[in-house]
Amino acid sequence: MSTPPPTNPGGLTLDRSRGVTTAAGFRAAGIAAGIKESGDRDLALVVNDGPADVAAAVFTTNQVKAAPVLWSQQVLQERRVRAVVLNSGCANACTGPEGFQDTHATAERVAEALGVGAGEVAVCSTGLIGERLPMDRVLPGVEAAADALATSDQAALDTATAVMTTDSRPKQVSTTHPAGWSVGGLAKGAGMCAPNMATMLSVITTDAVVDSSLLDFALRAAVARTFHRLDVDGSTSTNDTVLVLASGASRVSPDAGAFTGALTEVCADLVAQLQADAEGMTKRVRIEVVGAATEGDAVRVARTIAEDHLVGTALFGSDPNWGRIAMAVGRADAEVDPNRLDIRLNGVLLCAGGVKAAERHEADLSGPEILVEVDLHVGDDATFVLATDLSHGYVEENSAYSS
Amino acid sequence: MSTPPPTNPGGLTLDRSRGVTTAAGFRAAGIAAGIKESGDRDLALVVNDGPADVAAAVFTTNQVKAAPVLWSQQVLQERRVRAVVLNSGCANACTGPEGFQDTHATAERVAEALGVGAGEVAVCSTGLIGERLPMDRVLPGVEAAADALATSDQAALDTATAVMTTDSRPKQVSTTHPAGWSVGGLAKGAGMCAPNMATMLSVITTDAVVDSSLLDFALRAAVARTFHRLDVDGSTSTNDTVLVLASGASRVSPDAGAFTGALTEVCADLVAQLQADAEGMTKRVRIEVVGAATEGDAVRVARTIAEDHLVGTALFGSDPNWGRIAMAVGRADAEVDPNRLDIRLNGVLLCAGGVKAAERHEADLSGPEILVEVDLHVGDDATFVLATDLSHGYVEENSAYSS
Repeated sequence: MSTPPPTNPGGLTLDRSRGVTTAAGFRAAGIAAGIKESGDRDLALVVNDGPADVAAAVFTTNQVKAAPVLWSQQVLQERRVRAVVLNSGCANACTGPEGFQDTHATAERVAEALGVGAGEVAVCSTGLIGERLPMDRVLPGVEAAADALATSDQAALDTATAVMTTDSRPKQVSTTHPAGWSVGGLAKGAGMCAPNMATMLSVITTDAVVDSSLLDFALRAAVARTFHRLDVDGSTSTNDTVLVLASGASRVSPDAGAFTGALTEVCADLVAQLQADAEGMTKRVRIEVVGAATEGDAVRVARTIAEDHLVGTALFGSDPNWGRIAMAVGRADAEVDPNRLDIRLNGVLLCAGGVKAAERHEADLSGPEILVEVDLHVGDDATFVLATDLSHGYVEENSAYSS
Repeated sequence: MSTPPPTNPGGLTLDRSRGVTTAAGFRAAGIAAGIKESGDRDLALVVNDGPADVAAAVFTTNQVKAAPVLWSQQVLQERRVRAVVLNSGCANACTGPEGFQDTHATAERVAEALGVGAGEVAVCSTGLIGERLPMDRVLPGVEAAADALATSDQAALDTATAVMTTDSRPKQVSTTHPAGWSVGGLAKGAGMCAPNMATMLSVITTDAVVDSSLLDFALRAAVARTFHRLDVDGSTSTNDTVLVLASGASRVSPDAGAFTGALTEVCADLVAQLQADAEGMTKRVRIEVVGAATEGDAVRVARTIAEDHLVGTALFGSDPNWGRIAMAVGRADAEVDPNRLDIRLNGVLLCAGGVKAAERHEADLSGPEILVEVDLHVGDDATFVLATDLSHGYVEENSAYSS
């Protein structure tokens, strides 16, 4: 289904025609290395030419981590990254020490081509779990990508394209602050919307002058309100990585709040694009939980609703079956008073104080957007989660992916 | 799909042509009261004529509990039950104090008809959440059911039929121990297989002489290994109830182990029937987890696999995509060593020590039964869970149910 247009939050203009090369100091490339049988672009490089090389990242919480995640976690301990190499077509997960060696060799080849250290090269992979990378194609691909590096918008688009798996379109966005610094990024898949390619990946670049503490703080704050709020089926991948690189090339030190705000808006827009492109989805669902005893309770209730099979299938059927939402709320690991529960669907109060408040057909769920509002009435904490419906298309795509 | 034939565990013969009237001391009836628009049977009574009236029950853990659950929990505090009245077509959940009054009035009418106390009458309901019971049909229905009470096998079958919602066939089984006592039961839906009718219900009868402590112990032991091991989508209903009634009419006091064993086998066979009749399912899946640090870890790993959308859709597609199982194991709240993980599908070791051990196509998942074996290699605890695939039929049935 179509992606909603970008919003204009806080006066910032979001531009989806540009991406990781909007910020000064960055070059990028996306090429076809032959990892994908289709011959499509499948290998990308994003290079930070500085002067600074500050970096921050958030990785999957899955205990089964892909080799590139294990590698990049080591690299990020220094909070300095000169380049990121990404491939689609193979997750390089569940590949053991040999798979780690493949990631190491890839980083080494990038380091040689760019004249930097391998320990300054992060690696991201996405694709099928359990298969080795075709290194005879990856290593020449690294050379080709290094030769293709450019600062153009086309280079950014090629880069966003090269990380796609079942994505139907590349996802990128950028914004430039009036003070003269920019933030731009790309993303693919969705850790939970479309995790069958075993990953959600995102690389974000900025030319703001920021130290590693601010960059780390800003990224964690942004991810908590954006990538971590997207949940369709609860499947946390082995490869999820969100990486932000800062070149300092604008020579402008932004206000911490303004920088965190811009980074959050870029992440939020990437998440909106991920949600709209989730496999098989026919509805964009926003779940708002208020009146929770703690924020953790609010998140657990919202996620339980988002992940529930019966809620997801009802929404696919445009069915205002609030009883299933009440069931999901009641099974969440959170403080719930069944006699104070309010549920609104697309603004219509269907359940008040735990009982029917209106006939369900009074809520019209036939459109592409559904708002689920739950008021627990036991406290003051709140959250929201973005989700999708559970459709025939989801079953179709995911039952036919690997074979 | 077809139900597998009953097994012959521990020398006991299981007979699916008989049910809750096999044990001496019980009468039952299932009639059409007009709650269902289809005119099908929708109201049932099971009566314990004694001499004993010992009972035990296990109820849903959902915090949003239906009125009949709240009522029956009170009744069961005394561990004495003379009769159970059950209806399909309406869950009487999220109906507030008025809904509780409806349950109370139903129990009162049963008590009057049978000459017992209302506090000795348990109530079970199943159907759509959020709608009131049509009491103008329920109360005359109670009279009609009381008039129809009988000890015949037909009465047992009628009773099992009257609790069906989207079930395609009634589910019952019984067994008679060589020492002269019997256990028989009925079940409908599945708390997690087919929870859109908002319930799994089961009533079991026995004429063994057992005290309330043994009955409670035996039921909890049986449920832990049977009903609690069935998990498709994790949706715990508002109405789940498993109730066992003991009449003592055989005059035989069984050995505690023999009694627990027979009760467990009856429950296990009912669960096998529930699994085989789950909505839209095309595969019966058994997930075995061994080598866990604790039994809780084993259960969490097995349930995470059972509930995972991507595992479910892969199994629907007969796709031996063990990488998705590794992903699910890694995201479970349990001690996992990714480098020691073994995964077998239908007996073929596809993943050993966390890496590929064989080509996935060597495992054939095209048949109706799939065995998933996971060895965590971090401890000595184990468990199993029964599940199903996630199919087009599941989405179809559940997107069209209430509207």
